[in-house]
Amino acid sequence: MPETSETKIIRDTDMDALNLVAKIIMAAKHGALAAFEKNGRFPHISRIQISTSDDGQLITLVSDLAPHTACMREDPHCALLIGETGKGDPLAHPRMSLDVIAAQVNRDSAEFNAIRASHLARHPKAKLYVDFPDFSFFKLAPQKASLNGGFGKAYNLTEEELIAAITSDQD
Amino acid sequence: MPETSETKIIRDTDMDALNLVAKIIMAAKHGALAAFEKNGRFPHISRIQISTSDDGQLITLVSDLAPHTACMREDPHCALLIGETGKGDPLAHPRMSLDVIAAQVNRDSAEFNAIRASHLARHPKAKLYVDFPDFSFFKLAPQKASLNGGFGKAYNLTEEELIAAITSDQD
Repeated sequence: MPETSETKIIRDTDMDALNLVAKIIMAAKHGALAAFEKNGRFPHISRIQISTSDDGQLITLVSDLAPHTACMREDPHCALLIGETGKGDPLAHPRMSLDVIAAQVNRDSAEFNAIRASHLARHPKAKLYVDFPDFSFFKLAPQKASLNGGFGKAYNLTEEELIAAITSDQD
Repeated sequence: MPETSETKIIRDTDMDALNLVAKIIMAAKHGALAAFEKNGRFPHISRIQISTSDDGQLITLVSDLAPHTACMREDPHCALLIGETGKGDPLAHPRMSLDVIAAQVNRDSAEFNAIRASHLARHPKAKLYVDFPDFSFFKLAPQKASLNGGFGKAYNLTEEELIAAITSDQD
């Protein structure tokens, strides 16, 4: 049922909510990234690829030519929407909005190869461009999230709950 | 093929690009809305319903309980991502990022009934909650957009081109 003023807006996080978070993260191949644009009067939004890392962060692969790459370098505070829609009312399908902090993964870092391998496992077609000099991996470290499991099913997730859900995806 | 530094980044807008814009708008039932949150250190992002109006604006139906409604009332400068993904690389599928200005549709205005009717035609299930007192329609007036038709196919769209594409959807 739709929310009404009488509905309790945020529910207590239970196992069902945590399982839904893990399911959304495991299925996420892309998301919408919102970012601040330098001196921009409007927020920036664009579609990005998503995978996960061993240490509970979300990963994206971006080109220097894409405006969101400049945004993330300028101000790492971003927001990410993940969760697919399906048939019927798009608002009846679960989705999650995460506050994330973006940081580029250094090509010489110890973790680079593991991130590259797990990202390509989720995105085999990215093999075509992953090694182009203008492409970089960014970690998107989750700070908190709002899960909307469908009408009237809203939950707030902590950083710890998100990291646990993302690392469970690596098993 | 992926973009490289040698690729011309923004192409000239031609009929194929305009047809793609019209196709994305006609198919859009939902989108990701990026908005500024009052005193927020992160941008806000959430999924919203989308339809179109006779006068070339995008329309959404939102609840007072949703945080994006407060964001749009506080600062109408928002960004909207529309365009579905499908099989394969999510970045190979066309999508469009629009700068929009949000404005609530007054329930007593002459246009309210036409907007309500055309929104329900695209979202029949919204009949369940459209008349709840906490739900409102907002117009999202397009200012400009960036169309990404797949790797290497980027175009900039003007307000006039967007309004023409949206009104063609009404025919």
